[in-house]
Amino acid sequence: MNTTKRTEISSLGEFGLIDHITQGITPTNKETVKGIGDDAAILSFEGDVETLVSTDLLMEGVHFDLTYFPLRHLGYKAVVANISDIYAMNGTPKQITVSLALSRKFCIEDVEELYSGIKLACNRYGVDLIGGDTTSSLTGLAISITAIGTAPKGTAVKRDGAKETDLICVTGNLGAAYMGLQLLEREKIVADGKDVQPDFQGKEYILERQLKPEARNEIIEKLREENIRPTSMIDVSDGLSSELMHICKQSGVGCRIYEERIPIDYQTAIMAEELNMNVITCALNGGEDFELLFTVPIADHEKVAAMKDVRVIGHIVSDSMGLALITRDGVEMELKAQGWTPNKD
Amino acid sequence: MNTTKRTEISSLGEFGLIDHITQGITPTNKETVKGIGDDAAILSFEGDVETLVSTDLLMEGVHFDLTYFPLRHLGYKAVVANISDIYAMNGTPKQITVSLALSRKFCIEDVEELYSGIKLACNRYGVDLIGGDTTSSLTGLAISITAIGTAPKGTAVKRDGAKETDLICVTGNLGAAYMGLQLLEREKIVADGKDVQPDFQGKEYILERQLKPEARNEIIEKLREENIRPTSMIDVSDGLSSELMHICKQSGVGCRIYEERIPIDYQTAIMAEELNMNVITCALNGGEDFELLFTVPIADHEKVAAMKDVRVIGHIVSDSMGLALITRDGVEMELKAQGWTPNKD
Repeated sequence: MNTTKRTEISSLGEFGLIDHITQGITPTNKETVKGIGDDAAILSFEGDVETLVSTDLLMEGVHFDLTYFPLRHLGYKAVVANISDIYAMNGTPKQITVSLALSRKFCIEDVEELYSGIKLACNRYGVDLIGGDTTSSLTGLAISITAIGTAPKGTAVKRDGAKETDLICVTGNLGAAYMGLQLLEREKIVADGKDVQPDFQGKEYILERQLKPEARNEIIEKLREENIRPTSMIDVSDGLSSELMHICKQSGVGCRIYEERIPIDYQTAIMAEELNMNVITCALNGGEDFELLFTVPIADHEKVAAMKDVRVIGHIVSDSMGLALITRDGVEMELKAQGWTPNKD
Repeated sequence: MNTTKRTEISSLGEFGLIDHITQGITPTNKETVKGIGDDAAILSFEGDVETLVSTDLLMEGVHFDLTYFPLRHLGYKAVVANISDIYAMNGTPKQITVSLALSRKFCIEDVEELYSGIKLACNRYGVDLIGGDTTSSLTGLAISITAIGTAPKGTAVKRDGAKETDLICVTGNLGAAYMGLQLLEREKIVADGKDVQPDFQGKEYILERQLKPEARNEIIEKLREENIRPTSMIDVSDGLSSELMHICKQSGVGCRIYEERIPIDYQTAIMAEELNMNVITCALNGGEDFELLFTVPIADHEKVAAMKDVRVIGHIVSDSMGLALITRDGVEMELKAQGWTPNKD
């Protein structure tokens, strides 16, 4: 590697690194409407639709732990995570490519399991598996998925359109996937080699949110039916705080969200208590919920308030006011986001 | 992983595994013209162009060795390998996404080096970098690139159109990239920790073919100018034998190619002699040349014969005659292809 100068990636963090590396990258083809910096890129070739492209790379030991994550579920989740980005652009996913790198520990039956989950998700969301690459790796499993979708020209919703007084909405509930992960990690430590069958009774929901998440396609359809066009939208994959920061940064605005408005499931709250964790922190920073976070003009208040499974959690303010959570006792707390930093080598 | 039944991936090999896993996968969206099974998928959204999508996943220790492969070159080559697939569909690459997984051994300067090569290739081929994913890995570097291109509706060239009596053509020369790799591997063993500067004089060409390959976009343009529409086309990434097998299998035909017609550079021949290897075997099975292999109707013979940097190496025969190489002394040898089998874990 570089021996003359060495700046650790951790000094910038994930988002800092991406900003740094992609500086000065400007599309030159007329067909590229929007490049780096959103859930998906927007391409416009011909006709009245735009093409949306989103991609993810998942690494064993970083993004998933096969000691408790069944391969079938992993395949399903990997697809959902990608097409969720297409929905978050207000688009419809149409195709995916799947690339796998497999080490020798995997056998054909394993690959079949993984693909059965991939195919199940494809069927569930009406997406075609159109190609990919299958290769070997020295250690572990790597999965790279690219999702392709469409949206009628000009209807894709980016992260940069939130305006002062817009309402901030979120679907479903938050923190459940993260709590499911904590539970699985705890049982892994408890079991550690012993062949005990953990008791997950009463915790089925948080486990399902971690192991078999769904994308919120029905919300996208409902928004269209109700004639609500979000001013900005993103899916909650890295945690609410992190996603709010993306929207606010790219829209040049600030925000206020209210602790008491953040939707949390009963099982999530119970699990947080069991683990002695602050449930709001989990909801703010726990990722992989794949809920949709979006902003709408205040004029749409009645319409979104009446929508099933959508909660107004706050509003957009001016840039100078920053990003804050108002706690139940009225205290303003600055929102902070976390990205990844590299693991051991 | 699976403990009830375990069939080693090596029992099927790469192509067998892909066939096995993708069995029964049929596109259901009207926008998917061609899914799995070619250099790129073909999508048709609206208007008079089709969208082409191709993807690759490169793993450190399997696809590249950073002890002698500079990161800048790696970035360039990774892009070239992908857009070469778009050209091999008779298309024009327009955009790429790049996903990286990085272990702690990589610093920001390394990522800059890698991206400088990626950007250089993007500029050289007029391609926009439109997104990706940057994440961490436990060990080593993983690079996943997806290339998106276009072709006027109905002009994409697949692998399945070769017909009896068609001529088999190949661009440039073969085996050079493989010989460059052998040279680098040899010097690595010789140097092994010692800080010696190897002497590569007279071997610059094979090194460049390995370290900084180019895609054959100018051939695609030339074919268009000459009004030659190949009946099938593929890029030589896994070796001539392997690519010929793809074309013949998907077209339901056989082939005859002639040893004396296979284009080999002087430096490739010298290096093979030095290493005591059969140069024709290297040309048949050495990959990463990124030359184009295509078939044209026999009526185009004069036109392709007159084209610079294109060589007619044989012709298509009926399926029942199989795939064979005719040696200089007139012996017919059956062609065999190699895929990967998984590495150690």
